[in-house]
Amino acid sequence: MSQNTLKSLDGAVLFIFGATGDLAKRKLFPAIYSLYKEGKLSENFAVIGLARRPKTKEQFRDNLHASINEFSRYDQKDTERWNQFVEHFEYMSLDTQNPEGFKDLNVLTQSLEEKFSLNGNRLFYLALAPELFGGVAQNLRVGGLLESGGWHRLVIEKPFGYDLKSAEELNKQIRGVFEEEEIYRIDHYLGKEMVQNIEVIRFANAFFEPLWNNKHIANVQVTLSETVGVEERGGYYDHSGALRDMVQNHALQIVSMIAMEAPSRLEAEDIRDEKVKVLRSIRPFADDQDLRNHVIRGQYKAGSHGGKDMPAYRDEPNVNPESVTETFFAAKLHVDNFRWAGVPFYVRTGKRMPAKSTEVVVEFKNVPDHVYLAKNNNLRPNLLVIRVNPEEGIYIKINAKKPDSERSIVPVAMDFCQSCQVGINTPEAYERLLFDALCGESTYFTRWDEVATAWSIIDQIANSWSKDASDLKFYPAGTWGPEESHELLARDGFHWWPVNGQEEDDVIWISGKS
Amino acid sequence: MSQNTLKSLDGAVLFIFGATGDLAKRKLFPAIYSLYKEGKLSENFAVIGLARRPKTKEQFRDNLHASINEFSRYDQKDTERWNQFVEHFEYMSLDTQNPEGFKDLNVLTQSLEEKFSLNGNRLFYLALAPELFGGVAQNLRVGGLLESGGWHRLVIEKPFGYDLKSAEELNKQIRGVFEEEEIYRIDHYLGKEMVQNIEVIRFANAFFEPLWNNKHIANVQVTLSETVGVEERGGYYDHSGALRDMVQNHALQIVSMIAMEAPSRLEAEDIRDEKVKVLRSIRPFADDQDLRNHVIRGQYKAGSHGGKDMPAYRDEPNVNPESVTETFFAAKLHVDNFRWAGVPFYVRTGKRMPAKSTEVVVEFKNVPDHVYLAKNNNLRPNLLVIRVNPEEGIYIKINAKKPDSERSIVPVAMDFCQSCQVGINTPEAYERLLFDALCGESTYFTRWDEVATAWSIIDQIANSWSKDASDLKFYPAGTWGPEESHELLARDGFHWWPVNGQEEDDVIWISGKS
Repeated sequence: MSQNTLKSLDGAVLFIFGATGDLAKRKLFPAIYSLYKEGKLSENFAVIGLARRPKTKEQFRDNLHASINEFSRYDQKDTERWNQFVEHFEYMSLDTQNPEGFKDLNVLTQSLEEKFSLNGNRLFYLALAPELFGGVAQNLRVGGLLESGGWHRLVIEKPFGYDLKSAEELNKQIRGVFEEEEIYRIDHYLGKEMVQNIEVIRFANAFFEPLWNNKHIANVQVTLSETVGVEERGGYYDHSGALRDMVQNHALQIVSMIAMEAPSRLEAEDIRDEKVKVLRSIRPFADDQDLRNHVIRGQYKAGSHGGKDMPAYRDEPNVNPESVTETFFAAKLHVDNFRWAGVPFYVRTGKRMPAKSTEVVVEFKNVPDHVYLAKNNNLRPNLLVIRVNPEEGIYIKINAKKPDSERSIVPVAMDFCQSCQVGINTPEAYERLLFDALCGESTYFTRWDEVATAWSIIDQIANSWSKDASDLKFYPAGTWGPEESHELLARDGFHWWPVNGQEEDDVIWISGKS
Repeated sequence: MSQNTLKSLDGAVLFIFGATGDLAKRKLFPAIYSLYKEGKLSENFAVIGLARRPKTKEQFRDNLHASINEFSRYDQKDTERWNQFVEHFEYMSLDTQNPEGFKDLNVLTQSLEEKFSLNGNRLFYLALAPELFGGVAQNLRVGGLLESGGWHRLVIEKPFGYDLKSAEELNKQIRGVFEEEEIYRIDHYLGKEMVQNIEVIRFANAFFEPLWNNKHIANVQVTLSETVGVEERGGYYDHSGALRDMVQNHALQIVSMIAMEAPSRLEAEDIRDEKVKVLRSIRPFADDQDLRNHVIRGQYKAGSHGGKDMPAYRDEPNVNPESVTETFFAAKLHVDNFRWAGVPFYVRTGKRMPAKSTEVVVEFKNVPDHVYLAKNNNLRPNLLVIRVNPEEGIYIKINAKKPDSERSIVPVAMDFCQSCQVGINTPEAYERLLFDALCGESTYFTRWDEVATAWSIIDQIANSWSKDASDLKFYPAGTWGPEESHELLARDGFHWWPVNGQEEDDVIWISGKS
């Protein structure tokens, strides 16, 4: 988080590689439109859509219209304003293997920079398969696109490699052309409102800081659950699995934001320094046995939820019928430093779960068992829950007197539900991140050492798994994964707290103004 | 709070002295009815209404019906059940000065004990002027009423004396007849749901305990504000004033519950031991000057609020037109022990305030001024607010990211509003206390040493005030008291937090399910 709350934006050309793809359609174009509608782009920008497929400027602009119509949080009813907006958009068919095309692209770019009085700032957004990253970077240089007067930034999407070795290879290719400071590796979970709020909650409240350590916290639970299966992504996913698709990036990033020490300054590099220290402190597993005791993998079989039948993972399109790819992952991690020694971090993610949810539960140590009220009441531990998705907010679960004349004690929840607020139109993660990249604000992008350290954690697991898949457990679609995931916590005397707590738990949960 | 959550009730005769008075009508009869409706009294009880005025049993029962009709939280539509209920009620005209009448009362009591198979348990509730307490106690003995086989308990209402000396005198008279364990001194604030919840919040939540001391708490604010003036109580009030009417009992009781150390057991005597230790630790004022610097008194003059004109206190009925009685009190107190050294306890109470509210605000120390987010944001301190009345609940105010894409920080409130819950019919303070007294549960009654210690604190103030009333400040009715009350906190860099916070403060306050 920059010390400057008002970021300045000088104007730039945005190059969207993969402009006919799903990400561009669902996320990037709507994000650009929102930034425009909010005046953050003013008129100082141009967007060049790039893909192999030939398409006229008009066709491209029609696609743009359809995309924003379907996915934007702003309407486009004002025709005059819309026409002004699309005037900034050009399309060019480009074979990313062909250097000549990049030279033509440079000519087009220069003409747009003249038209919109831009000073040569160029943002290259690669919404492409990672195999193409290296070649594109190379050709950007060959085509002369990095010779303009302004800054040049490269935004790339996950997956950043398949393991540490391939990530290093990929990084080497890109770093041959761009400096580390010019590379913006997107982890869109870092663009989410409540993930960004973790820092504020921790460092702007004297209330939480004294409790944020192993003296007071019993464990931390990070859940990233999806209800969907692999949908049309079977080919990619069967190669990747939950470990690479969700844990290497999103889950470990959230763990590092929860566990990081306070940075010396709130500058991007200082914050990322602290985050990478957490990743480096995550304890490697002693051996394969230790790893299998503390890492659970699962794959969904056929099942049903809410009256809907769902096929087995192995029966999904483009999935190997004998696949041993994990669609569920759970692990107990340790952050071996003074703050966290002895506090387990439980992480789980899975497809075909009963609920879609991204939540962090910080479970505090309970009051001593035999003291006072604990003797006669089954006191629940206090929780601080950070709800990232789909609802955004935080809540605290405490014990209070049951609201009647009896003297029993029940858990009650104090809630701040941000997404429940009327009139709040929360920006999409991609809006924040795209704007951050345009402003040169890199806090919420992952730095190379974070990526590399995360891969080294993941590699140990993947390598162990590749030797023998006998620990893969099958769980019915529509459940919370294999029983072993629950045993992982039960062995320590804990359990997974229900996500979207109020529906599933017996906490008293009625608050505030209605 | 007893270790036993289920209290046993053996059956008893309740003697309501002052049965034609306001307290009996508004509070005691409805409380008895609620206990009956909830099955807590079963059929093992009898009530004898006592007052000087002659009245038939039927008239008394009619009065009872009217009282419950107007003031009970339960209806009385079931005629059969109602008839069963009133069957337990008798009335007797009694001159409390006349021992002979008490002998008759004993005869009546014995006949009721036979009728309802009671074993001689007798609860004497004196809803009388305190001057009469001693004589009644004496005559209870003379009349033979304390010779039955069961227990005998005396419940008395405030005011318990006018100063330490008169309280000692009163206590001596009563103690000539009753043992300390048999005396139940009512402070009805101790019967309020959220006051009783203070113990649970503090001792059943690992979350709060580590923060509950001078390392983390900046100050504590106790507000007991009323919108009413003296109404028809001018005669009593002009003699008493806010200091004796509100501070000696309610305000100091709340302070002691917030500040007390954890008791070794949750038994009445252990808890009251800890409470009285707090009162003993309240620092006396060094001299008159010190006292006047830290104790503010005010009296309302004419004013208006919400479009309603209100007369000056001196123009109220039965008030001396030159009265210097305080209708407003504010003070800065210190609890001189290891836990609280350096933490001011600000207490205020007043009539004709803009809002009716009983609230405790625990203000935590803020994050260091020049660290991180505090540099660029005007961070507010975290608050824990216990709302006693009229709404019941607790809320926490923390800092969070402003819910939009900008990176500014705003205070948000996490709320648990107990009284907002549907279907919760909170028992009245008198119900709890009457039931407690019947069960021999004395936690929420004030013990003699508490009363005496509180009086010694009050006496220092009253004695100083009586020398010279030049520090009495006049405030317009409908305001938060004299300016000096605000200066009291401003000198320390604090301010009174608005009560019923959300309406007056700019905190973001939208929570939970609607």
